[in-house]
Amino acid sequence: MIPFELTIIGSGSAKPTLKRKASAQMLTYGENHFLIDCAEGTQLQLNALKISLMRISHIFISHLHGDHYFGLIGLINSLHLIGRTKPLYIFGPEKLAEILQIQLDASETKLRYPLVFNTLQANGKQCILDNVHLEVYSFPVLHRIPTWGFLFNEKLPERNIRPDFIEAFHPNFDEIHAIKSGADFIDTYGNSHANHEISIQHDCRSYAYCTDTAYFEELIDYIKGVKVIYHETTFMANQVERAMATFHSTTLQAAEIALKAGAGKLIIGHFSSRYPTTETLLEETKTVFSNTVAAEDGLKIEL
Amino acid sequence: MIPFELTIIGSGSAKPTLKRKASAQMLTYGENHFLIDCAEGTQLQLNALKISLMRISHIFISHLHGDHYFGLIGLINSLHLIGRTKPLYIFGPEKLAEILQIQLDASETKLRYPLVFNTLQANGKQCILDNVHLEVYSFPVLHRIPTWGFLFNEKLPERNIRPDFIEAFHPNFDEIHAIKSGADFIDTYGNSHANHEISIQHDCRSYAYCTDTAYFEELIDYIKGVKVIYHETTFMANQVERAMATFHSTTLQAAEIALKAGAGKLIIGHFSSRYPTTETLLEETKTVFSNTVAAEDGLKIEL
Repeated sequence: MIPFELTIIGSGSAKPTLKRKASAQMLTYGENHFLIDCAEGTQLQLNALKISLMRISHIFISHLHGDHYFGLIGLINSLHLIGRTKPLYIFGPEKLAEILQIQLDASETKLRYPLVFNTLQANGKQCILDNVHLEVYSFPVLHRIPTWGFLFNEKLPERNIRPDFIEAFHPNFDEIHAIKSGADFIDTYGNSHANHEISIQHDCRSYAYCTDTAYFEELIDYIKGVKVIYHETTFMANQVERAMATFHSTTLQAAEIALKAGAGKLIIGHFSSRYPTTETLLEETKTVFSNTVAAEDGLKIEL
Repeated sequence: MIPFELTIIGSGSAKPTLKRKASAQMLTYGENHFLIDCAEGTQLQLNALKISLMRISHIFISHLHGDHYFGLIGLINSLHLIGRTKPLYIFGPEKLAEILQIQLDASETKLRYPLVFNTLQANGKQCILDNVHLEVYSFPVLHRIPTWGFLFNEKLPERNIRPDFIEAFHPNFDEIHAIKSGADFIDTYGNSHANHEISIQHDCRSYAYCTDTAYFEELIDYIKGVKVIYHETTFMANQVERAMATFHSTTLQAAEIALKAGAGKLIIGHFSSRYPTTETLLEETKTVFSNTVAAEDGLKIEL
């Protein structure tokens, strides 16, 4: 199986601290190196985690609060300085292109690589990327300014042929290819072997990124059945009014979304700097959704 | 004497590294807390150095290359979040105000404090700030895009009365005030004591910030007699052509400017990331100007 891996770059909220940087994540699958959000200092965090800036293929920006994108212009500039030539694809709110361009103009920078900008659309769930391995969707969440979540769905992978079948029947190259694609197999005696008896279908893996958002029921449909969801828990449940007022979520609200969406695993993050550790946030979330982990800067998660 | 102190926040050049951040400095004198340039991550560097963001009174931005200002919008945003109410004065290139405003608009942020923007002028040396302690000047330097240097001149401080005179003559409050302001003193026997015999005048301290710039003779007049000069040395002398092509300076060029300006001390910085240490840069500079120190992130210098 192709590794499908998430690395938390920054797990904090608006006020960056020395312990916990603001939002950024790297999601990798084959040649796809997706950066999701890019707070101030993300390029240095990537350096510290020995993640190559050059390999980033696409960048997804959820919204235009600074703790989710102030590091983007610096990253774009550094890629220019270190000699990138291949295109960089950016998905973000409409105004982002202008914000980047005005800064490139002010420094009279003509990028050595194409910056391909894709504007996120407000209306419902949209497929924004579809390649050989993955489909990526954007969908609106509920925040003070227009904000999007992202869903990364692995496409149905080829079936894996059972080792005992290969040993017994020695299928040739063309036969292997046919079985992986779903064909039955007829052996030299003329006996038919149904595909599902001789091969295994792995589940498709998937990942949803949901921050910043208040509790938002529509999310459940957008990400139904997702394997792993990252959902912000800026606050503990006793701060539910503050969460509503600031369009953020509590532990219990994130857990409820994960539960109702039938998610396999929940990652919580975007913690308010008022919480010195994540222990109580994690405990409270687990009372509703037990398979939960707390994001930490540098944490790697196999999806 | 009121402490007049410089702290180097970032001493690197365009490509930030984990060892050396891009340009930012704090200059403090009494209530003046001046931030000079503000590269990406400056607010976190200030936190790490335990320098209060809240105390910053004025910010000076030399030019609109990212390694000198990409951290400004994040700092402005953080000051808003932590509840600043007193005005923040910014001196920078014209386009900077627009760059900041478009980002504040995109996040629908109404700052809780006044941001007072002052546009730097292209024509020669200008007094941009004049308060009880200091005069601050801007002047153009020679770079690929419009760039300014800054000169901070201490005003003539009050004279200090000699301790032996105080012990012998016990001047009263009004007499002390008069002597500090330059008056002579007539004792109870009618003898006159000339001011210069009973008090001491300290030299005015001064600091000039000169980066990014190619070798630029006009600088010498702008900063004539400055006590301490920070002048960039992006390159060693054997890279003089590269320095000219990129509008930067070499060690020997910086030393020559310091020498011709009659400076007391030279601080070199803005080192290219190609140099793993500053030893050779410092040695080479000292062959022309011996009282030189190399900037390091976190270094404090009494002016």
